[in-house]
Amino acid sequence: MKHHSFKTIEGSVTAPQGFQAAGVFCDIKKLGTGKGSNKGQKRDLALIVSEEPAAVAGTFTTNQVCAAPVKLCVARVKHGRARAVVVNSGNANACTGRQGLYDAESMAELTASSLASSGGFKISLREVLVASTGRIGVPLPMANVKKGIIEAARLLESAPGGAHHAAEAIMTSDTRPKEIAVELQIGGRTVRLGGICKGAGMIQPGMSPTGARPALRSLHATMLCFLTTDAAIGSKTLQDALNESVAKSFNRITVDGDMSTNDTVLVLANGRAGNAILTARSGDFDIFQAALDHVTLELAKKIVLDGEGVSRFVTVRLQGAKTEADADAAVRAVANSTLVKTSWCGGDPNWGRILCALGYSSAALMEAAVDVGYSLPGSQDILYSLKWGRPVNVSYKALCQITTAKQFDLHINLHQGKARAWIYSSDLTENYVDFNKGDVNDPASLGG
Amino acid sequence: MKHHSFKTIEGSVTAPQGFQAAGVFCDIKKLGTGKGSNKGQKRDLALIVSEEPAAVAGTFTTNQVCAAPVKLCVARVKHGRARAVVVNSGNANACTGRQGLYDAESMAELTASSLASSGGFKISLREVLVASTGRIGVPLPMANVKKGIIEAARLLESAPGGAHHAAEAIMTSDTRPKEIAVELQIGGRTVRLGGICKGAGMIQPGMSPTGARPALRSLHATMLCFLTTDAAIGSKTLQDALNESVAKSFNRITVDGDMSTNDTVLVLANGRAGNAILTARSGDFDIFQAALDHVTLELAKKIVLDGEGVSRFVTVRLQGAKTEADADAAVRAVANSTLVKTSWCGGDPNWGRILCALGYSSAALMEAAVDVGYSLPGSQDILYSLKWGRPVNVSYKALCQITTAKQFDLHINLHQGKARAWIYSSDLTENYVDFNKGDVNDPASLGG
Repeated sequence: MKHHSFKTIEGSVTAPQGFQAAGVFCDIKKLGTGKGSNKGQKRDLALIVSEEPAAVAGTFTTNQVCAAPVKLCVARVKHGRARAVVVNSGNANACTGRQGLYDAESMAELTASSLASSGGFKISLREVLVASTGRIGVPLPMANVKKGIIEAARLLESAPGGAHHAAEAIMTSDTRPKEIAVELQIGGRTVRLGGICKGAGMIQPGMSPTGARPALRSLHATMLCFLTTDAAIGSKTLQDALNESVAKSFNRITVDGDMSTNDTVLVLANGRAGNAILTARSGDFDIFQAALDHVTLELAKKIVLDGEGVSRFVTVRLQGAKTEADADAAVRAVANSTLVKTSWCGGDPNWGRILCALGYSSAALMEAAVDVGYSLPGSQDILYSLKWGRPVNVSYKALCQITTAKQFDLHINLHQGKARAWIYSSDLTENYVDFNKGDVNDPASLGG
Repeated sequence: MKHHSFKTIEGSVTAPQGFQAAGVFCDIKKLGTGKGSNKGQKRDLALIVSEEPAAVAGTFTTNQVCAAPVKLCVARVKHGRARAVVVNSGNANACTGRQGLYDAESMAELTASSLASSGGFKISLREVLVASTGRIGVPLPMANVKKGIIEAARLLESAPGGAHHAAEAIMTSDTRPKEIAVELQIGGRTVRLGGICKGAGMIQPGMSPTGARPALRSLHATMLCFLTTDAAIGSKTLQDALNESVAKSFNRITVDGDMSTNDTVLVLANGRAGNAILTARSGDFDIFQAALDHVTLELAKKIVLDGEGVSRFVTVRLQGAKTEADADAAVRAVANSTLVKTSWCGGDPNWGRILCALGYSSAALMEAAVDVGYSLPGSQDILYSLKWGRPVNVSYKALCQITTAKQFDLHINLHQGKARAWIYSSDLTENYVDFNKGDVNDPASLGG
């Protein structure tokens, strides 16, 4: 096995050369989601800018009801070039009709004009991408958004502080900002890759590059992720690499099984590292892919760990399905079963509920052929409760030692074929319900 | 419109002539589900017996992992004749392998032999049907079950008390027994139809007559329902009538979206009323069907209203879908969305989450063509929040006056075609999570 070496470094989206970022407060959250940790003066508008034109790639929700900024991005990412991303939290700009499309467009215009006046960046309207997250169906408070964009353009910086503020500004019900950056060597050049993301609720992304539904459907919170790299790479190669990484990371997580109207991942590559342009045939492509895989997976896991009310992180690993579609349907049935998720909340292995969920999934299976086992993450010791459909003589206490851990792995084998799938999931807690039920007498408490 | 006249009467499964019932405590629950209201000496074994041979029909879970008693019933109902149903709660006898099948068979044998010795009923083994509900994956405590069956056979009575005890004995997390009976006239004869059922958690039945999956799949707690009638009707006609009723009642409810391994509906018709045998072409068939529809629907609604932790009952009515499958997928996506259900818990209309769930369902839709409205049950006044994809200028307070009621109807029109579907659903509450997470240090607290 080839060793792909990269190291984790400080910072996030401004760790790669030639990127600047900022995150400001412009009072959108108060008007949209404002519950929990996000009350008060929390940043709610982020700006990420490349100092020069960059290749861009993206993946977007496959929800048929998708937000205005998603429609804008799907159209613009096709051009393959972008330089700025403006993001607001607190309002999803979804189900807002024509006004919503107009407002998303205005956000891009305001960003281009503010960057021209304050930062001296000459950026065309088409090079600005937009993302939003928060409550659905409420028009954007554009006066506040405008104020925020002007201030963010003024505060842009390449120091880590700006990126950190951007990571804070995209949060909704997240309890902490999510950032990562890595450094790798490509053709003797030092290349960096960084990213920020947000998640928390309405999380089961099922993204595709165009928002069109892929053959293998996956359902699923708003998660937003913005990645930057100073690698030189074409937009087509970048899109292929991103598709590969997203399929193994963001499209493999679920918190509550609800696929958002706004899920978006964007990556900008400005070539500042000066490496020879990467193609799929480059000798160094694998290391770039491995770094992108690592960054997206770590960010995706952070989303599950910080999901609304989440107290436990469970990786469901399934093998032996007849087809890929069966494998995917089976892991998602288990990971999204209300009863399975509540049993995990209590630290109860309850393999009966797991078998029940497998049985009602669309995956072909035979009860007498199913294995169910548990392990601590990274351990090779799988403790089985069921082998070929028969309960194993294992103590309930021993199983609970695994399932009451903050993180554990669930192993399922259907013994029907060779297809595999896995998903990073969480428990369902009273805190999740309490958070999302809101208080109708306090509209500011109502989530997205 | 033809008026189908029948009247509600006292009692349940022993209201029709020629039926006897009993419900006893034999300490199964302590060994299986024993949480909440079912702690202590709660009845856990029921017996329903027809004094003479009866036609039988049934519908069963389409979960690929189905309990031993379901397998037994599927095979026996095919013969079209039955005389006794024995039911235990506290243990599902599911995922119990060969031992489970053997135990289900033993329950039937013990019932036949106990009835022969104590009641003087000469019943063949094949005429005994079996049902179980409770925790999955735990072998039945057969010594207790045997004790229970012997006592139940001894206590059989045609007075309402026996039926009421049977209704109590089939409860798991149900907070109250569920009973109904109606009386109708068929060809000058008085015919009665009665039933008992249980539900609470793991509720989204998707039953078919053979347990094989129907073209239109529906997923979904253990619900058990036992119906009796003194009508004279052939088993084939009875099965057709039951299929029709179940499609509009039990297969149209969801509490948590989890389809159980044990869902079972059985109906016994002993002909004691002395009417001319009913066929689909009988002039009086419609009134029998209407009475069966009424009984199953009322029992199904009782299950949702008494679902685990349920605080609100919501009927989702959808029209304008392109196909029946689309209509079904769309209502189920809404009724099973964790975020939609938690918003209902708070009494929040949150139509944005509804639109989001519609969008990720497999139903074809256009955001710009969707209507969403709310009404109080029985009212013709629908208050729309969305018309053709556009927010309606309606006050949030006015919407909340509907959605904070204990029961309301949600109306959705996709404007894509002529197919309709509806589903009886509930909210998702902290109490549901608390109940189902159990306490691993107190295995008796762990639900099914």
